[in-house]
Amino acid sequence: MALQPVLVGGAWRQSKNPAGSFSAVNPATKISLPEQYPISGPEDIDLVLQAAQGAVAELRSAGSPAALAHFLDCFAEQIEARVDQLVATAVLETALPAEPRLRSVELPRTTNQLRLAAEAVRDGSWHRATIDTGSNIRSMLGPLNGPVVVFGPNNFPFAFNAIAGGDFAAAIAAGNPVIAKGNPGHPGTTQILAEAAFAAVQASGLPLAMIQLIYHTAPEVGLGLVSDARIGAAAFTGSKTAGLALKAAADRAGKPIYLEMSSINPVFLLPGAIRERGGEISRELYASCSLGAGQFCTKPGIVVMQQDENSQRFIKELQSYFGQNVPGTLLNKAGLTSVAKAVTTLQEQGAEILTGGYAVAGARFAFANTLLQVSGDHFLVHPVDLQTEAFGPVSLLVIAEDINQMRAIAAQLEGNLTGSIYSHSQDEDDNAYDQIELVLRGKVGRLLNDKMPTGVAVVPAMNHGGPFPATGHPGFTAVGLPAALLRFAALHCYDNVRQHRLPPALQDKNPNGRMWRLIDGNWSQQDI
Amino acid sequence: MALQPVLVGGAWRQSKNPAGSFSAVNPATKISLPEQYPISGPEDIDLVLQAAQGAVAELRSAGSPAALAHFLDCFAEQIEARVDQLVATAVLETALPAEPRLRSVELPRTTNQLRLAAEAVRDGSWHRATIDTGSNIRSMLGPLNGPVVVFGPNNFPFAFNAIAGGDFAAAIAAGNPVIAKGNPGHPGTTQILAEAAFAAVQASGLPLAMIQLIYHTAPEVGLGLVSDARIGAAAFTGSKTAGLALKAAADRAGKPIYLEMSSINPVFLLPGAIRERGGEISRELYASCSLGAGQFCTKPGIVVMQQDENSQRFIKELQSYFGQNVPGTLLNKAGLTSVAKAVTTLQEQGAEILTGGYAVAGARFAFANTLLQVSGDHFLVHPVDLQTEAFGPVSLLVIAEDINQMRAIAAQLEGNLTGSIYSHSQDEDDNAYDQIELVLRGKVGRLLNDKMPTGVAVVPAMNHGGPFPATGHPGFTAVGLPAALLRFAALHCYDNVRQHRLPPALQDKNPNGRMWRLIDGNWSQQDI
Repeated sequence: MALQPVLVGGAWRQSKNPAGSFSAVNPATKISLPEQYPISGPEDIDLVLQAAQGAVAELRSAGSPAALAHFLDCFAEQIEARVDQLVATAVLETALPAEPRLRSVELPRTTNQLRLAAEAVRDGSWHRATIDTGSNIRSMLGPLNGPVVVFGPNNFPFAFNAIAGGDFAAAIAAGNPVIAKGNPGHPGTTQILAEAAFAAVQASGLPLAMIQLIYHTAPEVGLGLVSDARIGAAAFTGSKTAGLALKAAADRAGKPIYLEMSSINPVFLLPGAIRERGGEISRELYASCSLGAGQFCTKPGIVVMQQDENSQRFIKELQSYFGQNVPGTLLNKAGLTSVAKAVTTLQEQGAEILTGGYAVAGARFAFANTLLQVSGDHFLVHPVDLQTEAFGPVSLLVIAEDINQMRAIAAQLEGNLTGSIYSHSQDEDDNAYDQIELVLRGKVGRLLNDKMPTGVAVVPAMNHGGPFPATGHPGFTAVGLPAALLRFAALHCYDNVRQHRLPPALQDKNPNGRMWRLIDGNWSQQDI
Repeated sequence: MALQPVLVGGAWRQSKNPAGSFSAVNPATKISLPEQYPISGPEDIDLVLQAAQGAVAELRSAGSPAALAHFLDCFAEQIEARVDQLVATAVLETALPAEPRLRSVELPRTTNQLRLAAEAVRDGSWHRATIDTGSNIRSMLGPLNGPVVVFGPNNFPFAFNAIAGGDFAAAIAAGNPVIAKGNPGHPGTTQILAEAAFAAVQASGLPLAMIQLIYHTAPEVGLGLVSDARIGAAAFTGSKTAGLALKAAADRAGKPIYLEMSSINPVFLLPGAIRERGGEISRELYASCSLGAGQFCTKPGIVVMQQDENSQRFIKELQSYFGQNVPGTLLNKAGLTSVAKAVTTLQEQGAEILTGGYAVAGARFAFANTLLQVSGDHFLVHPVDLQTEAFGPVSLLVIAEDINQMRAIAAQLEGNLTGSIYSHSQDEDDNAYDQIELVLRGKVGRLLNDKMPTGVAVVPAMNHGGPFPATGHPGFTAVGLPAALLRFAALHCYDNVRQHRLPPALQDKNPNGRMWRLIDGNWSQQDI
């Protein structure tokens, strides 16, 4: 069977000297799907890099915010014209539920992100144009000097797809061509998205090599890609092992790389909250842990509470939710193996299984909903191994002696995307909250109060980021527009440059009458 | 003779098990100065890290913008009370001229930076507080979860000093303790600044370990410091060799490090400008190249122009400036060796010496003002070696055939802090300007028009940064407040957190009535 084409150099074409081929596997049946996709080798990589450089030069001389915004809007429409095909293909490749997840949640989130990115481009405030009239020094965030390489994860075939997701939208909106390296778990979904994107490129007048797609590469080829002198930056969402290898390669070459790797998203349940509404919280917690079969980067992987009679009751309720519900299907065999291994690691370090702990027999990839428990004392002896991420419907309860020990546990946490604190609705837990928050704040990107972390709203104040090793840099977010654009930008300063030679965002006249600019220390939408 | 004390753990004390000692050398006489300073080993490092962690915790529970601002202002006053002592010591240790350089330029710049940092703290707009009222998600830039390690360079004993300069001021203003690693070239100057800083710490009520100082370490100890799990980030200004070694160590540990390494600051002279005012430009260029004996990170190390009769005359004039003036004193012997080696490298790659090219005999460290020349054709054959930085009064002229070749030369440039284009005062060079700018823009942090790059104004729009290898990240600046603070901050998001648990910057009420906040997409100084 012929291999599916890659999108390289402004056209769909056969991979040049591929290193092999692969196909997707339906996780619900473990049966391979028929389409064969190429594993790209160095020759494809060289072609995409060359073509992307051409696109960078073209954009610089003839690019415009209007064309970028038009592309992003048009891409959203093109996706909407392919909803049935996209959902059907994603169901086959990921076994995620068509409804509500794929069709009613993730797909609209994806088109919404693209439209918000278009709006960010039209608005232009993301440039953070800064003008000092006295010295006539002006600066703004502008595109990088090379394409952005985006690696998509397996768990969000639309919203984080390398050629349609948040990183893609942000990199394009910041004015950079994208080289998408699709996730090999869902190549067919990625191909349809790339077709939609390419139709939008053709309609918008952007350089044809603005977007390119390869499906898969050998690891060493990926390392070569993120460290190539011709790229601007890279973005990766996926496992810590792969992420750290890419980071090492990119770092050596001096190339920025933004990683979203592992996170166990600690949830601290304060005693007043459990006493007041333990039943409600256990339901909420189970729902958060089992969403997407636990394959969310923001899944609560560790839950810390104080030992008392209320927490005993709470654990029993939670245990029954975990035990009585059928677990979702995992994305692939590697995920199943990895979850089983992580649970074994937790057990070896002294965690006791309250329910689950085994792979589910049958036609599909599944692991039983699994709740484990360990004492706070024990956690403090093995704090590293007991933070092993289990990317599935698994959570570890840590039962502390008191608030002081809860705080000591917080102090041992690695960097995480999120940390949550549940507290009594009145002031009962205020002191305990302060004690935990003081330590937890520095460990997480997003601190939640009385709320589970799995929802990641696409709003300007969102932080889907956090300290290493959750990500590679604590100052940036991967979700939320226009903030996510800041990762893919360089600071361009103009010193004593004549008006007509300045980019429109830095000229005296506000280019669209609404762009926010920092003029002599004050944010303004006015002309100078 | 007793070793001078280090400032560790909130007190001046003897270094614990130092790895040796060193003294400064007067570059004007090559004679060692009497004071002996310790080379700190792992035990000092462990003490400073422990103490800094304590300071982080203390700040988090009891820190305030008022105390930080008070410290910064008070430090500026303490410096002013020690001007004579500082200038006298810096003259002995660096041989930089007391007037105007040290007393009238660099010292006021230093106190000005500290006061601007204090103002940034009081104003609070640097936090970039972002509030989405609909979702009640709020975020801001806040301090890191550990101290900032600052490595000071040799060429600015005040303004970039590890315990008083721009990085120091920015790290403190962002709310982080600083571990200063002084430059071994001017330990006495650094000690006086640290005494002034420590007096200000005591007066302001900040944790006593807010600032700490060691003078020198073995390279491997420095690598351990920037990769220690307990630090927040590091900042380094200095050589590419040392910077890249520190970067590799910090990167492996997932610690942000901001580097300001090498830059040759290309200057493109367009034909109309040379014809119109070549005499003026040659004077300006010589002044820029010889400032601080050429030991500026923004010194024009390469000058590109088109071959014609005007440029021939221009070169003769420039050559006579270089040849007829007495060169300044270099900072140390290593600098002299390094300049000589760089000039040899340039010669080996075919550059011809027009004037200079030798070490000046005598009591002081000095290298003749040196002008080299190479053809554009030749440059394009050896573009890497011909970009060797010579950190001294040395500049390389590249004589291109035409504008196209000037553009080809620009395309071969590495990342630089600055790039300058001189153009005719009317529209004569407009087309040439556009051609060069299109390529140069992506290669530099600050693009100058009809202006030499050596002046680095401390204004909000400044970018003293640029693409690798000039720095380690193209999105940040080391000079300019409050922008320089952004390097030492983490993005702190609060999701559904109750009002009284939010930091003041994110509560509905604007904490000082003037902080700019991004509320529902609009910058505002109002309450919600």
